[in-house]
Amino acid sequence: MSNLFLLIPLVGCVSISSAQQNSLNLMPVPSNIEVQQQGRFALTPGFSVSVNADKNDAVLYAAVNRMYQTLNRRTSLYFKTQYITPSANTGPAQLTITVHSNAAGEIGIDESYSLKVTEQNISLNAPTTAGALHGLQTILQLAYKDGGAFYLPTVTINDAPRFKWRGLMIDVARHFVSLDEMKRNIDAMAAVKMNVLHWHLTDDEGFRVESKQFPLLHKLGSNGDYYTQAQLKELVKYAADRGIMIVPEFDMPGHAQSWFAGYPELASLPGPYRPGPRTQWQNDNPDPSRPSTRSIGDLIKYMVSPTFDPTNEDVYKFLDKFVGEMTTIFPSGYVHIGADENNGMAWKLNPEIMAWMKKKEMQTTDELQRHFVKRVHDILKKRDRRMIGWEEIYNDKLPKDAIVQKWITDGGDLTHPRGTANEFASNGYNSLLSEGFYLDIFMPAYIHYNNPAINGTDHSNFLGGEAAQWTEIANNENLPGRIWPRAGAVAERLWSPASVNDVDDMYRRLFNLSNQLDEQGLQHLSNYERALRRLTNNAPTDNLRTLTDVLTPAKGYKKLFAKMTKPANQTQQTAPLADVSDIVFCDSEVKWAFRRNVAAYLELKDPALENLLVKQLIKWRDNDAGLQPYFQRSAQLALIKQHSANLHDAAVIGLAAIENIKAGNQPDAAWQKEQLKKLTEYKKSVGETELEIVSEIEALVNRKLSPLPASFPVF
Amino acid sequence: MSNLFLLIPLVGCVSISSAQQNSLNLMPVPSNIEVQQQGRFALTPGFSVSVNADKNDAVLYAAVNRMYQTLNRRTSLYFKTQYITPSANTGPAQLTITVHSNAAGEIGIDESYSLKVTEQNISLNAPTTAGALHGLQTILQLAYKDGGAFYLPTVTINDAPRFKWRGLMIDVARHFVSLDEMKRNIDAMAAVKMNVLHWHLTDDEGFRVESKQFPLLHKLGSNGDYYTQAQLKELVKYAADRGIMIVPEFDMPGHAQSWFAGYPELASLPGPYRPGPRTQWQNDNPDPSRPSTRSIGDLIKYMVSPTFDPTNEDVYKFLDKFVGEMTTIFPSGYVHIGADENNGMAWKLNPEIMAWMKKKEMQTTDELQRHFVKRVHDILKKRDRRMIGWEEIYNDKLPKDAIVQKWITDGGDLTHPRGTANEFASNGYNSLLSEGFYLDIFMPAYIHYNNPAINGTDHSNFLGGEAAQWTEIANNENLPGRIWPRAGAVAERLWSPASVNDVDDMYRRLFNLSNQLDEQGLQHLSNYERALRRLTNNAPTDNLRTLTDVLTPAKGYKKLFAKMTKPANQTQQTAPLADVSDIVFCDSEVKWAFRRNVAAYLELKDPALENLLVKQLIKWRDNDAGLQPYFQRSAQLALIKQHSANLHDAAVIGLAAIENIKAGNQPDAAWQKEQLKKLTEYKKSVGETELEIVSEIEALVNRKLSPLPASFPVF
Repeated sequence: MSNLFLLIPLVGCVSISSAQQNSLNLMPVPSNIEVQQQGRFALTPGFSVSVNADKNDAVLYAAVNRMYQTLNRRTSLYFKTQYITPSANTGPAQLTITVHSNAAGEIGIDESYSLKVTEQNISLNAPTTAGALHGLQTILQLAYKDGGAFYLPTVTINDAPRFKWRGLMIDVARHFVSLDEMKRNIDAMAAVKMNVLHWHLTDDEGFRVESKQFPLLHKLGSNGDYYTQAQLKELVKYAADRGIMIVPEFDMPGHAQSWFAGYPELASLPGPYRPGPRTQWQNDNPDPSRPSTRSIGDLIKYMVSPTFDPTNEDVYKFLDKFVGEMTTIFPSGYVHIGADENNGMAWKLNPEIMAWMKKKEMQTTDELQRHFVKRVHDILKKRDRRMIGWEEIYNDKLPKDAIVQKWITDGGDLTHPRGTANEFASNGYNSLLSEGFYLDIFMPAYIHYNNPAINGTDHSNFLGGEAAQWTEIANNENLPGRIWPRAGAVAERLWSPASVNDVDDMYRRLFNLSNQLDEQGLQHLSNYERALRRLTNNAPTDNLRTLTDVLTPAKGYKKLFAKMTKPANQTQQTAPLADVSDIVFCDSEVKWAFRRNVAAYLELKDPALENLLVKQLIKWRDNDAGLQPYFQRSAQLALIKQHSANLHDAAVIGLAAIENIKAGNQPDAAWQKEQLKKLTEYKKSVGETELEIVSEIEALVNRKLSPLPASFPVF
Repeated sequence: MSNLFLLIPLVGCVSISSAQQNSLNLMPVPSNIEVQQQGRFALTPGFSVSVNADKNDAVLYAAVNRMYQTLNRRTSLYFKTQYITPSANTGPAQLTITVHSNAAGEIGIDESYSLKVTEQNISLNAPTTAGALHGLQTILQLAYKDGGAFYLPTVTINDAPRFKWRGLMIDVARHFVSLDEMKRNIDAMAAVKMNVLHWHLTDDEGFRVESKQFPLLHKLGSNGDYYTQAQLKELVKYAADRGIMIVPEFDMPGHAQSWFAGYPELASLPGPYRPGPRTQWQNDNPDPSRPSTRSIGDLIKYMVSPTFDPTNEDVYKFLDKFVGEMTTIFPSGYVHIGADENNGMAWKLNPEIMAWMKKKEMQTTDELQRHFVKRVHDILKKRDRRMIGWEEIYNDKLPKDAIVQKWITDGGDLTHPRGTANEFASNGYNSLLSEGFYLDIFMPAYIHYNNPAINGTDHSNFLGGEAAQWTEIANNENLPGRIWPRAGAVAERLWSPASVNDVDDMYRRLFNLSNQLDEQGLQHLSNYERALRRLTNNAPTDNLRTLTDVLTPAKGYKKLFAKMTKPANQTQQTAPLADVSDIVFCDSEVKWAFRRNVAAYLELKDPALENLLVKQLIKWRDNDAGLQPYFQRSAQLALIKQHSANLHDAAVIGLAAIENIKAGNQPDAAWQKEQLKKLTEYKKSVGETELEIVSEIEALVNRKLSPLPASFPVF
């Protein structure tokens, strides 16, 4: 940690623009906020709460008590009241909560709330429980410390979301995620006012749901890691208590290897099958006609993915029963069927399927996929469930009540988009956006925040979007740091007005959110620190952290493709995922503090800022020497040794640049060119990580900060 | 963190005595170990395991895979095999595991194992699954890092426990403990070869078990925090998978307020009742005849604890049904009924109970308690459950199959022991020891390690003991740091031969265990760091940590009594427990490293050691200045401000003492006396915490390290 952080104002009241000031520490920024410049509300042991609402609104009362307890713990004031209950709820109070209708966890209900904080009291009004829950989160984010005491600023907030569907998708098939980790993610979602958890429960690598109808699904379709029905129901309730709807995804007809481990008769090709990455299945069944190269393009093109047989009536009987069972667990009105990435290879290799298609006059496997999707749609409809699918379900015969989820970025040979979210909407379908919101490709938060795909999604059929975390190379340990705090930037994009787009202020609030999530128990910081201890074998981690705090994972799919195409597939369930690239965050807080200070210094030439920068640069310069013994003691740390040397060299260049500025020298073009050439080298990926602060050193050399790149290569 | 830690050898091979060397990093120390001085076994990606055992021994296979995965993750070697399964288990392997009988989780079975590590391979042999599980933990503790690679030392171990009952009691009534936290504690227990989790599930403050027979028990008897039956069964299985038996405790006839919230008719006095501390009930029902002082002695003497009515036949019908329900959840052959701390006041205040006693010719409420205990004993016996009770069940008419758990330390007016564990054993009862193993009174680990009460417990009726963690002032956040790593010292006392008693070596291994537990996911370090961040409001924690790393909570019951007797009881369920005294550990790792270095320096006068000490002292001296702004910004930190000044002053004295030694000065008695007087002041408790490194500064002044105190006042 660096003293630079102290520059970040606790409340937006020091040397920041008025737009930023009004955003305080709130994430997402409310649609309307007025900050009074005078006065504040003080939290005391007598902090009292009164609720005017349906006395049976258990979701509301539980949320009020959670908010109250969080403040009690944060302030350590030992509030005199223990619990806010309907019966104890009489007389005037400092915080009055009024809720008109007992409703939450449904898409499209009124989620607005208004909040007024004066020096004397706080009032929260909401038409629904859902709105009140959001308002309670705003109260938590407003509460701040000053001196030894805690306050809320005096504000008037009228808030409502821009989009009605603000989701997070978590893939628990590739790597299993524990129930407790899921709960912590739900808590974090609630903090940023998200309302849908899209739970990717099945895939080739694992079937994570206990089925009593078809017990071989979880027994043979997983490595033993699955949720019991009691646990599934527990999480559904946990989410509902926080105003969050869980939408289960059962991916089909492809991505279905784990189903076939127990029920191979449902597949298009004979088994045996066992859960695992698709590439594993390919490796197990070598076909001499396929190229022996391991390029990712060849894998995608020639992969024979285990796929449901759409011509087999037993498949639909099976799915009908299975869906019936799942609807007793998941009350939400939506079921996601995936339907992505089916290249049709498994069908083409089965002569009977090809004969069936011919009989039905189907020309392409895409038509067969349409047939399958329609049949599954009808099974869901019978159970009052709306079908959601990834954009590959989209075609001109798709039933109009289906919801289409956009995800594909054009990838040349690799991927082919079916349209934009707005095109789907214009053609009469409710649509969702996940393109540009994929958290698993290691982009910094501002890339998602500025996601261009959200532009033009103004059709009323467009519902909103979802951040998506696939877990080929994420597991229970690094997952929270992969998702958070970045998902907060997506949440803000989906909640706040489009005009809220100041990246610097977003980052100020994002790192604040990170601390808030840590306070409420999220493990992103703890697991990072634990991983650093493991990497140093419990020796002091200070030097290592100075380096890793300014490293980010290599951006895009490079890291995944590298692991997938190794002889022993390194995306497997038991892969350690304990390298530096696995544990560093996609946004470096130190980088953003440094960037802010560089920008301010270049503008103001302030000696205090200069001192801060010099101190930081000296720390980086001197860090490499201290790390040398560590590189000798750890093969994993040796992978990033070059970055340490580069950080040293970059810091030396930065110090020289400041010397030049300080001395009032004119820019020396030759010197600048020489340094910039070196700095370009330092930007290269090493050990699947990138050194984040090079652009800011360039700025010191150039005496001008370049704008952030608008995008980075995905493939 | 300090570089001093680097002095701790990774494997016991540098400048430590041969006894220590042979203990390696193992905790508990095996009963027999031979270390070969040459050679070692290298872990590689091809690390292979073969199991010769009952193919249906799911507990064994799961444990083998956990061990295998832990090594895979620790080494990041990407082992070629994913899972060790009975079917894949053919051919020669590097590690061969042979188990003769599929048995674990029962008291009294053979828990021995033998382990032989050569340069080429490892063999683990055990008569039972239980023994094999212990051997797998030994393998994990043996694996160490050297350079960039991982090895096991070449050893021959023949190991078996000293006592058959090695337990940990966790109170989840006073403060609820989450299911996941319970799981992590079970993992930690398994790491130190404990075999009994004694789960204190009910008390005045909360009824933590879902009852379908009597749903008002959990519904009105808790604040909503309880385990569902599905969760209870999940934990029983989780423990059994790790060779650990769960013994549930339902405390009665006293400590029973939470039962009566829903079923007041079972109590000796009319209600209404609600769950909460006993003192709360007293405060709610003021009796003018009782003194108005809030001394702890008065509280204990005059407290009217809600207590079952032993004269009411409906009570036994109720308990019979309840026990019947619980036996479907807890398969263990033991049920703990508590039966502690019943002062009889509730019975004396009920004339009908007094009349009943008279009719039955009972002279004292103790006799009535005997009657109650006997009736409950019979209910348990009917269900094939052996009754365990705290020592208050002990009397000459107690059925001989009862097990008596010793806990009471003589506390003058406050507590009165009923005998010693060995006396109970000599009189024909199986007995257990918890006196001296109470973790909740903030003693350093060596006090428990040297527990004098274990001496003389050589009767064959003596089963073993249990560390005990009561939770009046512990919650889900500070619990892991309250229990661990200290419980490891108790585990060693109960497993290893009595001759294993080197305190310095125990601490070396204890802090090593702490890191191992952190690696496997225990939250003690993470929660400490999170609490520090909260205390600094997310400003850098380095300075604060330099201080808090050498603070420990005030020892004994002082802190609890202080909180209990505040007008608003601060032990309540929702108490923040977020002060410095709530989060610092009972053993300071920095203190022990410093102590080791002071001892070595005074013996050797080595300049390298001198440099280390001076560096440490300068860090402490200079720390106070950096902390000043923090004291202004936090009321909780201001509570320990004096310690910071004292640490500065003590460091100044230490530096002067070293100067004197270095200059070859003779001891100056007047100067010494003056310094020692000041140092005595610094030992005083401030903000319910104590400064741990004062004795070592005294040693530098005296040029001689005093022995550790044999005990500290409890009351």
